Amino acid sequence: MACTRFITLRTVHETSAYTRLLRLHRTSPGNVRASFSTLMSPPSKAVFYENHGPPDTVTKIIELPPVEIKANDVCVKMLAAPINPSDINRIEGVYPVRPPVPAVAGYEGVGEVHSVGSAVQGLSPSDLVMASPPSPGTWQTHVVKDKSLWHKFDKGTPVEYAATVTINPLTALRMVEDYVDLKSGDAIVQNGATSMVGQCVIQLAKLRGIHTINIIRDRSGSDEAKEKLKKLGADEVFTESQLDVKNVKSLLGNVPEPVLGFNCVGGNAASLVLKFLRQGGTMVTYGGMAKKPVTVSTSAFIFKELSLKGFWLQKWLSSGKTEECREMVDYLLGLVCEGKLKYDMELTPFSEFHTALDKALGKHGSQLKQVIKF
Amino acid sequence: MACTRFITLRTVHETSAYTRLLRLHRTSPGNVRASFSTLMSPPSKAVFYENHGPPDTVTKIIELPPVEIKANDVCVKMLAAPINPSDINRIEGVYPVRPPVPAVAGYEGVGEVHSVGSAVQGLSPSDLVMASPPSPGTWQTHVVKDKSLWHKFDKGTPVEYAATVTINPLTALRMVEDYVDLKSGDAIVQNGATSMVGQCVIQLAKLRGIHTINIIRDRSGSDEAKEKLKKLGADEVFTESQLDVKNVKSLLGNVPEPVLGFNCVGGNAASLVLKFLRQGGTMVTYGGMAKKPVTVSTSAFIFKELSLKGFWLQKWLSSGKTEECREMVDYLLGLVCEGKLKYDMELTPFSEFHTALDKALGKHGSQLKQVIKF
Repeated sequence: MACTRFITLRTVHETSAYTRLLRLHRTSPGNVRASFSTLMSPPSKAVFYENHGPPDTVTKIIELPPVEIKANDVCVKMLAAPINPSDINRIEGVYPVRPPVPAVAGYEGVGEVHSVGSAVQGLSPSDLVMASPPSPGTWQTHVVKDKSLWHKFDKGTPVEYAATVTINPLTALRMVEDYVDLKSGDAIVQNGATSMVGQCVIQLAKLRGIHTINIIRDRSGSDEAKEKLKKLGADEVFTESQLDVKNVKSLLGNVPEPVLGFNCVGGNAASLVLKFLRQGGTMVTYGGMAKKPVTVSTSAFIFKELSLKGFWLQKWLSSGKTEECREMVDYLLGLVCEGKLKYDMELTPFSEFHTALDKALGKHGSQLKQVIKF
Repeated sequence: MACTRFITLRTVHETSAYTRLLRLHRTSPGNVRASFSTLMSPPSKAVFYENHGPPDTVTKIIELPPVEIKANDVCVKMLAAPINPSDINRIEGVYPVRPPVPAVAGYEGVGEVHSVGSAVQGLSPSDLVMASPPSPGTWQTHVVKDKSLWHKFDKGTPVEYAATVTINPLTALRMVEDYVDLKSGDAIVQNGATSMVGQCVIQLAKLRGIHTINIIRDRSGSDEAKEKLKKLGADEVFTESQLDVKNVKSLLGNVPEPVLGFNCVGGNAASLVLKFLRQGGTMVTYGGMAKKPVTVSTSAFIFKELSLKGFWLQKWLSSGKTEECREMVDYLLGLVCEGKLKYDMELTPFSEFHTALDKALGKHGSQLKQVIKF
């Protein structure tokens, strides 16, 4: 039956872009006209784009034909996948590493094993798995990839956390761990503190006895946002306008001057992080939501001895750290299950994908992280 | 005789600021009214300032009375001392570390031992010594300081090089050595390449087989400046306007993309250094001649993985590295004697101090490094 449907679809979608996509979509080259005895995936509904451009205009939902499940392949029925800013940038074509077009969008996600190739051991239908490290093409109902790309996780884990743990919480963990040898009692300052990374930084720091000073935008609801972050363990939360004072450090109270800062905004919000940093401190940039550069005075470099660096998770993930990545993901999901790590998300059915995309694009103001539920 | 003159001067200068200066001027507190049997320095002509402010208005040449040369003191007849930008900043009161006013200006310098205290061994009259690490108050004809502050150097050394080796050439050496593990064949990019540090970077890099890409200002005489730097060993020299192109890297020729950059200018000249840097490169800021901040895009941090740091020699010197500093100074002066390290200077007699100061302040356009000859 699968094959019959495949043929129908091929007839409908026989275009050159579509043919190229099929080649890309497959784990490895092979004969698409498979015999009836070949193990095939179900057809897949996918978020597809033929050319780079504004995500809300270039993406469409299409149905992809079944593909062959080869000996080492695993076919996964996807359950959930988030819309991250880097997914948007990949579709726009402004991300430095991007799959060639046409492509299926998405990078992070989880699902349930649907079927496995003849040589696959250790994974069976109904196991829960995540793309680990993340891999292009997760925004579709069925994904067929080599078994090495799938990481099994415990069935007691909330699926929406497993779907989102690898990009944002892992970024928070690596940034807290990798730049400064933090000791209990030290402090971190960050902007964009309501982001998923920001929420994780607060909680991961708190677990290590590290204080956080948090900077958020001035907007309606900022009082509620402050309360929420404080409940997660934030020591101090300021809106940018509250920091329009001569000496921001007078606002620190009992929190020591921070030795580490995180910037995902740029512009004035980055300058505020720099102002809070203590002598010899380090600021790590991992995003640029304000689309404004970071500006630093000469004296901040020379006399305040600040160091400025950047963090790029994809580079970290692509440096052969698959096992390390999976251990950390398991650690983070362990914290989730123990109630020590939580963050806000909004689950949206796949049928309403473009509504979720519009929210992720900021068309309706600040919104929760969008997670597509298949 | 010295004491008679002392009494005369005291009568003339009996002001509260002057009295405070005498206390500061002395190595340690003591009875200024010394007996005739006490070993005293000659009187000293000094560049003195009572309050911070514009150096050309707040500094004046005064005569300071003899001071006691105590058991561990060495009295040095100064021979030469440079005017460095940090000296200007100290007088202006904008340097983060500055001696209290009133003060004698200057920080680096060399002289000939005039007389030594009763407990001093290893230094004798006519020995050549430098303030090492540098120490406030070198712009005067005679300086009395504890023996530990003086480092003897070889009499064959050109005095003007010994007078200037500790601030600028040492900065160049530390910056080439301390930030990136450079290998022969690597490249450095720097702005402000005609500065004394810039000239030293070119030669110290060349000695290690490291290429340099050099950025200079657009000004009359830039062609001659380019030729001069190329003779010192520069691989490429560009004026800022030459780099007003889409892809500066197309100008690299056979020189590899630089892994390390030095910025002593700020503003556009710093952005040009960043543009040249290769993936994962580091830019070290050690000055801000344009008085403009450094501006960095988010993607330069995240996707180009650039690191930005600062270098402050005084911090390095004050971290108990006296012996290391002296070894490096000897190494650098060895290169000078072998003809492997040279740089431009203009020697000006102490009697024309304010002319030299005006040149150092840039009143007559770009000028050579001014060195006061006593």
